[in-house]
Amino acid sequence: MSGRLYGLGVGPGDPELLTVKAVRILAQADVIAHFAKAGRNGNAYATVESHLRPGVILEPLHYPVTTEVDKDLPAYKEPITAFYEEAAGRIARHLDAGRTVAILSEGDPMFYGSYMHLHVRFAGRYEVEVVPGVTGMSGGWSALGAPIAQGDDILSILPGTLPEAALVEQFRNADAMVVMKVGRNLPKIRRALIAAGREAGAFYVERATMANQTIMPLADKSDDVAPYFSIVLIPGWQARP
Amino acid sequence: MSGRLYGLGVGPGDPELLTVKAVRILAQADVIAHFAKAGRNGNAYATVESHLRPGVILEPLHYPVTTEVDKDLPAYKEPITAFYEEAAGRIARHLDAGRTVAILSEGDPMFYGSYMHLHVRFAGRYEVEVVPGVTGMSGGWSALGAPIAQGDDILSILPGTLPEAALVEQFRNADAMVVMKVGRNLPKIRRALIAAGREAGAFYVERATMANQTIMPLADKSDDVAPYFSIVLIPGWQARP
Repeated sequence: MSGRLYGLGVGPGDPELLTVKAVRILAQADVIAHFAKAGRNGNAYATVESHLRPGVILEPLHYPVTTEVDKDLPAYKEPITAFYEEAAGRIARHLDAGRTVAILSEGDPMFYGSYMHLHVRFAGRYEVEVVPGVTGMSGGWSALGAPIAQGDDILSILPGTLPEAALVEQFRNADAMVVMKVGRNLPKIRRALIAAGREAGAFYVERATMANQTIMPLADKSDDVAPYFSIVLIPGWQARP
Repeated sequence: MSGRLYGLGVGPGDPELLTVKAVRILAQADVIAHFAKAGRNGNAYATVESHLRPGVILEPLHYPVTTEVDKDLPAYKEPITAFYEEAAGRIARHLDAGRTVAILSEGDPMFYGSYMHLHVRFAGRYEVEVVPGVTGMSGGWSALGAPIAQGDDILSILPGTLPEAALVEQFRNADAMVVMKVGRNLPKIRRALIAAGREAGAFYVERATMANQTIMPLADKSDDVAPYFSIVLIPGWQARP
């Protein structure tokens, strides 16, 4: 009998923001798979490390390319597709041997997560369950203490990888906004916010809920150095009622 | 010395989707406040009930009006503002007496939650901490097993209370979408999805992660009966890479 696969959301980084369900599955799983850059364990692994049981099989999935390469170029698409295929093969061998496998996902598995690329390769063929997690953006606006959206607000989640003109248009028209995948896109995001007249309400958030978190008004950030997973928040709250 | 206030996200409904931090705070708090309709305990209370310690002080906050009244009318605004003021007064008396108070919030406190209306009345005046939670929408797309957004997708969170024409425009232009606060707005949402040619990819989700959850393609839902907290999901995933 095949093993069961879990897509396991581990939350924004504070180990206490794991769900009770995630802790239970971490204690039961035979295999823990986790995405990371080559030579690193990654944030998801660091978040769950204290909950791993002795003897659990670790299956690190090391990205072959950086996230900062243009994803429409063959130099990105070909190795990343081969990587997901190879990773799926490794996971399938564990499942076929009857092992329970948990694939860790920072934040929530189905929300801009690498896990999705494995999920679509297994769903329907194996017993698969997705365990939702607290997103990084929830960690960010909670740490900031900022109501992000309420009432009739539209909340737009925007990848910072979008072209500058598209960002300007979105920034002009949206109520509340979250910009994901900031990284080296920060100068472009900043220009677009200024063009749309929205910079004053924007906050820069890095590693929210982790020991080394940074949160500040974007206008106060004097450099353009930002990790890939940093985000920009533009809360929609206005005093009502 | 004043007590500490927590805005406590309790997740989408499955008690196992509480965070470890929420469970710890529930065990420590002197007072648990929770929003509910008159005569009911509400979903947030039901989610945490098994984690409450004996002797904890309960402070139910009963809405004076239904959520289905037009919120721009004085018949809604006046009683709801008076309600938040009165609730804030009750919480303040506990804090002033040195008691730790946790205000429960379904899903995530700062994401379209009633807690925000109390948060803005306390932040800066008392020691306040927001504990993020798994949102109802994450519970929904995880139960559905649908990657909601990836790569360059824009994800739009849309209140179902928006006018029909605004919904049509949003549905036409967005990649992935979540429609919140469906309730009696369902016929309008359905018409707008059909007008925008997006009904085929839409899913109706009710009480995700709870024992009585309902998830189905929207086109298969033969009636227009929906609780206020039901949502509609339109995943953005397309096979890439």
